[in-house]
Amino acid sequence: MNRFRLVCSRCSLTLPFRYNEMKCACGGTLLVDYDVEQIARTFTKEALAARYPTMWRYKDLLPVNEPDCIVSLGEGWTPLLRMREWERKLPIRQLWIKREEQNPTGSFKSRGFSVAVSLLKEAGVTQAAVPSNGNAAGALAAYAGRAGIKAYAFIPSDCPPLIVQECVQYGARTFLVDGFIHDAAAIIEAGKEEQGWVNVGTLKEAGRVEGKKTMGLELAEQLGWKFPDVIIYPTGGGSGIIGMWKAYIELKALGWIDGPMPRFVCVQEAGCQPIVDSLAAGGQAAAQPAGVPASPTGMRVPNPPDLELILSIVEQSGGTAIALSRSEIASAVETLGAQGISASPEGAATWAGLLASCESGWLRPTDSVVLFNTSHALKYSKLASLAQLPTIRNYRDFCNYWK
Amino acid sequence: MNRFRLVCSRCSLTLPFRYNEMKCACGGTLLVDYDVEQIARTFTKEALAARYPTMWRYKDLLPVNEPDCIVSLGEGWTPLLRMREWERKLPIRQLWIKREEQNPTGSFKSRGFSVAVSLLKEAGVTQAAVPSNGNAAGALAAYAGRAGIKAYAFIPSDCPPLIVQECVQYGARTFLVDGFIHDAAAIIEAGKEEQGWVNVGTLKEAGRVEGKKTMGLELAEQLGWKFPDVIIYPTGGGSGIIGMWKAYIELKALGWIDGPMPRFVCVQEAGCQPIVDSLAAGGQAAAQPAGVPASPTGMRVPNPPDLELILSIVEQSGGTAIALSRSEIASAVETLGAQGISASPEGAATWAGLLASCESGWLRPTDSVVLFNTSHALKYSKLASLAQLPTIRNYRDFCNYWK
Ligand SMILES: Cc1ncc(COP(=O)(O)O)c(C=O)c1O
Ligand SMILES: Cc1ncc(COP(=O)(O)O)c(C=O)c1O
Repeated sequence: MNRFRLVCSRCSLTLPFRYNEMKCACGGTLLVDYDVEQIARTFTKEALAARYPTMWRYKDLLPVNEPDCIVSLGEGWTPLLRMREWERKLPIRQLWIKREEQNPTGSFKSRGFSVAVSLLKEAGVTQAAVPSNGNAAGALAAYAGRAGIKAYAFIPSDCPPLIVQECVQYGARTFLVDGFIHDAAAIIEAGKEEQGWVNVGTLKEAGRVEGKKTMGLELAEQLGWKFPDVIIYPTGGGSGIIGMWKAYIELKALGWIDGPMPRFVCVQEAGCQPIVDSLAAGGQAAAQPAGVPASPTGMRVPNPPDLELILSIVEQSGGTAIALSRSEIASAVETLGAQGISASPEGAATWAGLLASCESGWLRPTDSVVLFNTSHALKYSKLASLAQLPTIRNYRDFCNYWK
Repeated sequence: MNRFRLVCSRCSLTLPFRYNEMKCACGGTLLVDYDVEQIARTFTKEALAARYPTMWRYKDLLPVNEPDCIVSLGEGWTPLLRMREWERKLPIRQLWIKREEQNPTGSFKSRGFSVAVSLLKEAGVTQAAVPSNGNAAGALAAYAGRAGIKAYAFIPSDCPPLIVQECVQYGARTFLVDGFIHDAAAIIEAGKEEQGWVNVGTLKEAGRVEGKKTMGLELAEQLGWKFPDVIIYPTGGGSGIIGMWKAYIELKALGWIDGPMPRFVCVQEAGCQPIVDSLAAGGQAAAQPAGVPASPTGMRVPNPPDLELILSIVEQSGGTAIALSRSEIASAVETLGAQGISASPEGAATWAGLLASCESGWLRPTDSVVLFNTSHALKYSKLASLAQLPTIRNYRDFCNYWK
């Protein structure tokens, strides 16, 4: 019997596994469904403890069958950093930051593409294309480079230049798109047949959600097979949230954890806040302001491919969604930087969300909270002129400057 | 009895441990010396196997006594990536890349400063200064930020602007120096008394070499308690080489490994190659060309603080040193990039060194080789204009561009 199949997250239809075409006839998203009973026979906590610390230690719960097809660059098992000083300052019990920027491509996107590109390799695919605000494109480029697959990246032209440059350095055929991520996606849909591209955009194939699921598996293992009370996550297309929710469901089915689901808090930047607005509208998909005035980060996804699924996860979990202003996010980048943590705007948004939900009283004094720093600050550098820094020749210059 | 003391690497004088002032009266460098017999009583391979994968799993061989003083940002246990495709193409047996850029500050310098700043914290120090080509300054800034210690960074003004910017973001008081790293060091020496700075420059204190030692400990553990035949390492001040040699000595004393020492290959950029030149001169320190025409990378250290020790390690190990041209290094950055690996010029120099020593016949068909990618390509970005990239609106634009 097969270790896994597909199941529709809306109508529960089941289908044999395929790596591609994840839209069910009912409009829902097909997700990978594992035969947990079969898997539990050999996959035990003890077996796991002896394995190497990469995300592939969870291979029993990943949909790749051929070990030789695993495309790895050293992803996963990122540090979970305790923030004791802030536990004392804030009205919560425990605070952690998951340092996803320490992945091989400087963002959590490495995880999804390690699985996605492994599936492409297993299927003998030679060309793949992605619409992306940058980090996904960089990750596709790197993993495709490692696998010898041709990558095409379509990125809104206002996205961070260093991330665009990274795609080029990893050898992807890189295009700037005058528009948003859905405009980039439309180009791929229009061309994929003629060009022979597999579209590896969010929820278009089976691997990315599964790869991101390992963030949840890892988090639980790092906390001693417990989930935190609250996970604050910068949400764009939503596959991170969907992946971690799947991790919870599967660990529960394995009997490895119990207790309630972590409350998922989606943070977004004001000006592109479909999750926040739709929750406020009682679950109705809410249109975003014309021009989508939010900054070009991974959170800027005006039309998530399966908003319904994200909303149902947030609601089921007792979570919420918060929109943060650009200046709240900028000041969170500084606060984290001063503590030695290289936080991208997305990662910093979780910090801003933490402060906001302490302030509003939404967080409880008994809560343990995990923030996800999903990418490196470096990747967003603007190279603001260094001219304002002092240039000195000797100690006397230093003293003159300093007084 | 104390777990560790200091011993001079030149005259073998022993002294009680202090964290600072590592110059022996004889001119040699004081290094930390452990009571291996005492340590071996509780520090076993089995005990280690159960520990968390960070470099602090080796705490028994690190000179920090107070667990509460450990300043950690999630450093160490970086991936060791097998390069099978290249094993087939090159006349060697095995090839690995150690991905040190996945450390918290994007370079291997995280390791040294995690230990150095822990020692500062243990000693109650409140201000530290470092002369650096960039990555060391970024690491001091981050760890000092985490520990609440004031950091002063002095960096040659032609060093990569993003790394300088990183120091500022981590809250360091950052100064550009019109000169080389030794000019920056001179400023600190001139001001340290008046300003109350502890100089945490290369070999000025006990922690950095010890932290870098964990690269060697980890490498041996990741290879199943074996060292590779050859380690190719981008060498500047030399503390990486010194640290890994110490790892070898200590693991040997513990009885955890046997066999010959790995052959250490130091790579440098032509135009700043004191190790290459001094080896060629039979061990005599060789002056570098006026103006030091090499690029501003971590390898550009015209006067390493203890060249004699580096040379003796390279010679003892049966290793060598190679100078690579700027264009060989640039092309190695591209080769690694196309395989999905974000390599700094220093990391790429190890690749160029690999190719050169295959070509010269210095490497043997039976050799297993490990390259160290010491930093992230991203940190060296120049933000070359993206103007040459195509900007498109739709699939028709794509087709027009592509034909
Ligand atoms: C750094 C970063 N954080 C968060 C996100 C949002 O991710 P998700 O698709 O999981 O909602 C992205 C997506 O591009 C990203 O690049
Ligand atoms: C990226 C990088 N590689 C290599 C080196 C050289 O290191 P070491 O002092 O261990 O010789 C440095 C030092 O600045 C560096 O930043």
